[in-house]
Amino acid sequence: MSELPQLDCKKTKEKIIEFIKTKMSEANAEGLVVGLSGGIDSTLSAFLATEAVGKENVFGVSMPSTTTPTEDKVHGTDLANILGIEYREIGIDSILNEYLTLTNYITYNDPLAIGNLKARIRMSIIYYYANAKNYMVIGTGNRSELLIGYFTKYGDGACDIEPIGDLYKLQVRELAKYMNVPSEIIEKPPRAGLWDNQTDEDEIGMKYEVLDNLLYLYVDKKEDISKIAENLNISVEEVERIIKKVKINAHKTRIPESPKRCDL
Amino acid sequence: MSELPQLDCKKTKEKIIEFIKTKMSEANAEGLVVGLSGGIDSTLSAFLATEAVGKENVFGVSMPSTTTPTEDKVHGTDLANILGIEYREIGIDSILNEYLTLTNYITYNDPLAIGNLKARIRMSIIYYYANAKNYMVIGTGNRSELLIGYFTKYGDGACDIEPIGDLYKLQVRELAKYMNVPSEIIEKPPRAGLWDNQTDEDEIGMKYEVLDNLLYLYVDKKEDISKIAENLNISVEEVERIIKKVKINAHKTRIPESPKRCDL
Repeated sequence: MSELPQLDCKKTKEKIIEFIKTKMSEANAEGLVVGLSGGIDSTLSAFLATEAVGKENVFGVSMPSTTTPTEDKVHGTDLANILGIEYREIGIDSILNEYLTLTNYITYNDPLAIGNLKARIRMSIIYYYANAKNYMVIGTGNRSELLIGYFTKYGDGACDIEPIGDLYKLQVRELAKYMNVPSEIIEKPPRAGLWDNQTDEDEIGMKYEVLDNLLYLYVDKKEDISKIAENLNISVEEVERIIKKVKINAHKTRIPESPKRCDL
Repeated sequence: MSELPQLDCKKTKEKIIEFIKTKMSEANAEGLVVGLSGGIDSTLSAFLATEAVGKENVFGVSMPSTTTPTEDKVHGTDLANILGIEYREIGIDSILNEYLTLTNYITYNDPLAIGNLKARIRMSIIYYYANAKNYMVIGTGNRSELLIGYFTKYGDGACDIEPIGDLYKLQVRELAKYMNVPSEIIEKPPRAGLWDNQTDEDEIGMKYEVLDNLLYLYVDKKEDISKIAENLNISVEEVERIIKKVKINAHKTRIPESPKRCDL
């Protein structure tokens, strides 16, 4: 049974750049805003955006909070310098505190709800700039995250175009290497920074090497669960646990449903 | 040429209530959050939510700002009392000011960007409660607004289910009358309250009576533009102006696109 194929980096890169250019022109947008977390996905997205529309038309925003690792903040600034793009850093803690005070956070103190709120604050800032500058918002979601719903609905999942949305996380790494993204960004552990010491792989409970092959076999190749488990040398229960994530989070990548009206 | 038919209020109401119940149960949600603006759409949505899942499982949030007409604030409170639902009022101005200070609003002072930011602040509050309480967010968008994109992407357009999303605005009024929504809410001019003295019909440049028939004939009936203009006794240019809105705002009701990757 074949596993996740290698990415054709050259062709994929060309296709993504062409896609970004076409969508910008269709929307009559004057530039692109990208939220820079210091992670590989947003870094690669900024590289692609800059190559597609030129450094003078890309605006990077880094939005750290107290739970953002210092290293990630530094990487955001470094990246803006490397690419030569316009850049702002906006700490979101004072906004977050205002929300928590008004909504009475003592009653509802909940790390996941607060993590999601942070992602929505960042989205609101990115779109504020995009609206004011007539820019589009470039999403940074990859196929692995999108499939298992590992993002905040209407938060980091919110964008106008999703250039790397068809690349599994392992393929994001391949394309990042191909485009000479700094190796320390490629190699550090993926983390959303929504709370202290959080890493993606701890939270998902699986390494991307396994997850990506599992998703590829299940979603793209429509293989049987038992065959996938055997092939990846994991239990059927582990495969089912991930498939459950895919199913219960499918609403995050769908337009909300409406029932059909009845006319007289 | 037939115009927008009357709504079968009885059947439509039953269908929407069934829909809400089904979606709640599928998501294992414990209740519904609805943002109450004091307008007809959110009021009708709150009536439907309460009838579907019971007053003890509906949470209404009213989120006024300085540009919210006082009358609308009063209607939000009245409504919560009429329905007997849990209710909070949260003024959003201090949160808004924190965003504007941090993003340097002097440079980007723009009423549309600020109006959109307010809608996104309200969404973030609604979802914060929804996440903390394991509730779903009930959308309040109607078919007229959804088609012409008269809402903020990832703001008031953000929800988990869109119960009245297939009803044109005129049909929302029919169903609201049928469900005994207070007549002063049905009869007041529709307005988003995003800036002072704003009304929907001024901003769209057309009465809902004309708009709804135009959209029905163009989208549902696929009639020719010239026939629509003749039938509604308006110019071809007016019809084209609205169709342009439908086309350029279609991205607001679509999942962001990704280009396909190339594997080796």
